[in-house]
Amino acid sequence: MSWLESSIMAKKGVAGGEARTRHAITEATQGTYHYVYGPFVKPTLTVDPGAVVSAETHDAFEGKIQHETDKPSEILNFPYLNPQNGPIYVNGAKKGDTLAVYIESIVPRGPQPRGTTVVMPGFGGLVSTDHTAMLHTPLPEVVKKLHITLEEGTKWNDKITLPYEPFIGTIGTSPEIEAISSLQPDYYGGNMDMPDVGVGAVVYLPVNTDGGLLYLGDCHAAQGDGELCGVAIEHPTVTTVRIDLIKDWTIKWPRLETADFIMSIGSARPLEDAARVAYRDLIRWMAADYGFTEMDAYMLLTQAGRVRLGNMVDPKYTMGASIKKAYLG
Amino acid sequence: MSWLESSIMAKKGVAGGEARTRHAITEATQGTYHYVYGPFVKPTLTVDPGAVVSAETHDAFEGKIQHETDKPSEILNFPYLNPQNGPIYVNGAKKGDTLAVYIESIVPRGPQPRGTTVVMPGFGGLVSTDHTAMLHTPLPEVVKKLHITLEEGTKWNDKITLPYEPFIGTIGTSPEIEAISSLQPDYYGGNMDMPDVGVGAVVYLPVNTDGGLLYLGDCHAAQGDGELCGVAIEHPTVTTVRIDLIKDWTIKWPRLETADFIMSIGSARPLEDAARVAYRDLIRWMAADYGFTEMDAYMLLTQAGRVRLGNMVDPKYTMGASIKKAYLG
Amino acid sequence: MSWLESSIMAKKGVAGGEARTRHAITEATQGTYHYVYGPFVKPTLTVDPGAVVSAETHDAFEGKIQHETDKPSEILNFPYLNPQNGPIYVNGAKKGDTLAVYIESIVPRGPQPRGTTVVMPGFGGLVSTDHTAMLHTPLPEVVKKLHITLEEGTKWNDKITLPYEPFIGTIGTSPEIEAISSLQPDYYGGNMDMPDVGVGAVVYLPVNTDGGLLYLGDCHAAQGDGELCGVAIEHPTVTTVRIDLIKDWTIKWPRLETADFIMSIGSARPLEDAARVAYRDLIRWMAADYGFTEMDAYMLLTQAGRVRLGNMVDPKYTMGASIKKAYLG
Amino acid sequence: MSWLESSIMAKKGVAGGEARTRHAITEATQGTYHYVYGPFVKPTLTVDPGAVVSAETHDAFEGKIQHETDKPSEILNFPYLNPQNGPIYVNGAKKGDTLAVYIESIVPRGPQPRGTTVVMPGFGGLVSTDHTAMLHTPLPEVVKKLHITLEEGTKWNDKITLPYEPFIGTIGTSPEIEAISSLQPDYYGGNMDMPDVGVGAVVYLPVNTDGGLLYLGDCHAAQGDGELCGVAIEHPTVTTVRIDLIKDWTIKWPRLETADFIMSIGSARPLEDAARVAYRDLIRWMAADYGFTEMDAYMLLTQAGRVRLGNMVDPKYTMGASIKKAYLG
Repeated sequence: MSWLESSIMAKKGVAGGEARTRHAITEATQGTYHYVYGPFVKPTLTVDPGAVVSAETHDAFEGKIQHETDKPSEILNFPYLNPQNGPIYVNGAKKGDTLAVYIESIVPRGPQPRGTTVVMPGFGGLVSTDHTAMLHTPLPEVVKKLHITLEEGTKWNDKITLPYEPFIGTIGTSPEIEAISSLQPDYYGGNMDMPDVGVGAVVYLPVNTDGGLLYLGDCHAAQGDGELCGVAIEHPTVTTVRIDLIKDWTIKWPRLETADFIMSIGSARPLEDAARVAYRDLIRWMAADYGFTEMDAYMLLTQAGRVRLGNMVDPKYTMGASIKKAYLG
Repeated sequence: MSWLESSIMAKKGVAGGEARTRHAITEATQGTYHYVYGPFVKPTLTVDPGAVVSAETHDAFEGKIQHETDKPSEILNFPYLNPQNGPIYVNGAKKGDTLAVYIESIVPRGPQPRGTTVVMPGFGGLVSTDHTAMLHTPLPEVVKKLHITLEEGTKWNDKITLPYEPFIGTIGTSPEIEAISSLQPDYYGGNMDMPDVGVGAVVYLPVNTDGGLLYLGDCHAAQGDGELCGVAIEHPTVTTVRIDLIKDWTIKWPRLETADFIMSIGSARPLEDAARVAYRDLIRWMAADYGFTEMDAYMLLTQAGRVRLGNMVDPKYTMGASIKKAYLG
Repeated sequence: MSWLESSIMAKKGVAGGEARTRHAITEATQGTYHYVYGPFVKPTLTVDPGAVVSAETHDAFEGKIQHETDKPSEILNFPYLNPQNGPIYVNGAKKGDTLAVYIESIVPRGPQPRGTTVVMPGFGGLVSTDHTAMLHTPLPEVVKKLHITLEEGTKWNDKITLPYEPFIGTIGTSPEIEAISSLQPDYYGGNMDMPDVGVGAVVYLPVNTDGGLLYLGDCHAAQGDGELCGVAIEHPTVTTVRIDLIKDWTIKWPRLETADFIMSIGSARPLEDAARVAYRDLIRWMAADYGFTEMDAYMLLTQAGRVRLGNMVDPKYTMGASIKKAYLG
Repeated sequence: MSWLESSIMAKKGVAGGEARTRHAITEATQGTYHYVYGPFVKPTLTVDPGAVVSAETHDAFEGKIQHETDKPSEILNFPYLNPQNGPIYVNGAKKGDTLAVYIESIVPRGPQPRGTTVVMPGFGGLVSTDHTAMLHTPLPEVVKKLHITLEEGTKWNDKITLPYEPFIGTIGTSPEIEAISSLQPDYYGGNMDMPDVGVGAVVYLPVNTDGGLLYLGDCHAAQGDGELCGVAIEHPTVTTVRIDLIKDWTIKWPRLETADFIMSIGSARPLEDAARVAYRDLIRWMAADYGFTEMDAYMLLTQAGRVRLGNMVDPKYTMGASIKKAYLG
């Protein structure tokens, strides 16, 4: 028996966390990919809770960076970046509910070298950007194309091979009245770039509007904490998720569950605010669902909480705060 | 002769900065007010450059806070806050152009006490918020209703009367593909809460999509630097602006001009990034249009630049960096 | 009658704000200048309240940058920067008291060109620094030597002359057990680089250890808000201050008074924390001494508070929050 | 053979990383513990490279919090907090060198319950503090006394036992001319509260003044990432370190080495600046000592770097950035 059977998704989901129907979103059925998370487009797919959806995701550059001699600053056309599959309308989802998304698998696709990372002007954690505005000359542009397989991972160079540790860089629901760039992470998910959003995890996302309107894309073959230069190992995939609906569980920020821990994910600037958001949400979760007082949770997390840095490069920075299930009693 | 005749608006505007036609947006013609800055709604009005538009603005609470015994947390329905007039479609405006908006007048309207300020949970510069997440109990809610006249200003209490120093709290153009809450300030303007956006100033706003799609609202009868508790003296007004179009002047952030100074306005978190954005944009402006090298501008601003704190409470904080025209040669 | 006679200094000072004795600290009597604010050195001077002290201050580079061809990165020897006069031991001052320092005059001294500003690697508001660590190549080093007179100000170039608006860049008391670089501003004052600390103002500084141990130096002939490139118009001066002692008035952060307003000065990172410190201290001051409740003060400052950006370049950033005396009743 | 024999300490140390002499610092021989990191006191001990020193450390409250009914706000006397052993003068150490400190063991001492954690006003990651200044009423004070053994760890309550994962919360060298509170972390180490500074790791610390002047104290029996409420499981210990000296290896920030990874540790505010400091130092280390170009290191860390949050509560926040040795070639 998998831990999934005792997950929150299984206990509270309309479909009991089960896989009931299968669906595919191909490049053809997706047609136009989306660059905003919003309620102003028609759903690509409408499903019931229990749906398993396999989506052909593009890489964050929509496949436009093909050679190491390419110039991202010339090829890319802001804000048409980070194309997303969906939205998927989940029947029965209303504002105040929560979508549960179990990540079944992520499989690389497309011709080799299918991986891409770049250093480009005005983007990254250690460079002048639109917001941390400096007077310096930009770093040189660099494109690195990479060979990726499910079995062997990413061949970084002759000496280094990085294991295939894929995750969904961008996933979330639609805001209620806003349409926000898929480059941004926020309370509804979005471009969190959090490596724990990987195969075998369940992500919980707040429903802000009818149907929830789930978007996803931007899968990474590997990523360091913080996504330092701003671009992980981007690659196209077939990503398969199981979607359930939890009625009347209202969450303020994305949450995540694995066999071993629960996590709250905050996105904000400055980075300490992302940590504050994540830790406070986790405290409130422990108080609401696990019998702690807020003060007890605060003190226990001081001694046993763990923090993961998702990104320090997107319009908001992302951190996840977690606690082992073993400590939840 | 007014300084306006030698303004950038006059020199570069399609209408030469002149007032050519007059238009009104009343509550009735506006109909639905808007809570996002975006391209997904029909324009309220379409005008040529040179248009003078008088708009009946609501206060930021759409008039719902009427008594000092009201509970904002019960009455207000997030995200349906900060209602905006518009959008106004400006003929000829294309991405890469700039709208010039001269603020002719702001006149209070509506029954007394027509001014409102509040302290409400989760909002403000010295309290726990959704992003600077703390564990404290919120401050008590307070509503203050205020008598405002054009001539005498705001009667704060028996001893203090604040002069009527009105400005437009929220003004901007539409993003290209996003629709963003009118509570947020950003590169397109929005909820900057910058007191210098007052009568007699010209605001320059980047055009991101056809027609520019100008929104405005949220006028304040007075405001301290930073808008500390999050809510200025909100009041309904008739606000009159003259709109011109500058072709092929591409700006990245809002700019402002008065008789005495030019200002660049940045919005970001943390607050130092707002200052960096503002100062860098001002340096680039001085380099592009006033004959400075970037290094010269950087050094001169070190000795003669001025900074105004707009807000330290909105989703992004806002600062304006300015230099006297006398130093521009 | 000067406003000074009704100042806090006059009302609460042991010497009633009066000038009673005169003292001089020359380069010779100072001997070694100091690079830290701390209690580990002998006082240069011991005075009673009511002392007027004229000090020969050095510029922040101790006069080492003499030509525009000099290379600051080669000449300067970190941490031996920003030399300070003092400390001055004030008889009777005990932890929990406050020093009041009225700035009588600042007069430039030394051979022309006596003013210096520089752009140097790793320092400034729009460049990579030791803390906002980036990968960029530094900007080029620049030295600008400037002619300064009391009457005509600073001749910036052929077209621009900046008025002489001098202030004390660095002034404060000793910490109790620490010795902190004179490059840093903090709760005891230090390198605040706040232009309001100018002639005619009274600065109030917390006493942390016996005698208070007042240091000062780093006078600027002019400075823009934020001291953007990190270096104002540095120059040597004769600076004259009147020192009084306020017993049993315990303040947490530097405060300032002029004829028109009172100000609290906060230093912290990120910049919003400096603003929070300043505004909260001002609220507490208004509550303790002017009959406001904290909530009233919070709301009034929202509408009438003013904020000055001192520096956005030092180890902590500095902001001052002020309110007109006219609103204090 | 231990990995230590191939450590940087072993390769570069004057003593080849060997344990050559043994020394003890007892409460009696320490006498006065220190509350600042500075050069103004006499060394407690003078040693040659290769010294193994066992120190009786106090807890951060110097043992003053003995009962759960104690009120920290009444008992503690700021700034006399976080008492430190040392300083230890290392013969031969000169500015520009590096101390290597291998942590051999940490053993709890003192009568049970020997562990202490507290929530106290004005301190913590999710509360109003002196710098993130809010208007809220403080959280209630809480003291928790805890039973700790080397074998069984910390008995948190009837259901939860936390493993004994001790580390040195505060360790570092003296600044050159400053004396800085032991509550602060910075470029010389200090109160980093980084759980990786545990048994089996080697910490590298920059020498800023003759003898290096090593201080240490503040050992924690366990701590979550960020030390959320501000106080880990504080306890008195016997902590044993081996000290070597690396001549002419000049480092700017603390570094750390284990069997598996190397780490750079940055302390700054806001938190993203701590991450930037850590990552940039790691990049420069990889470039200087492991054959990477800075751009290569930047890109590899984007995919394989790891970040640990030490504290988000001290005067500066601390993060460590690391890379597996397996990727260093």
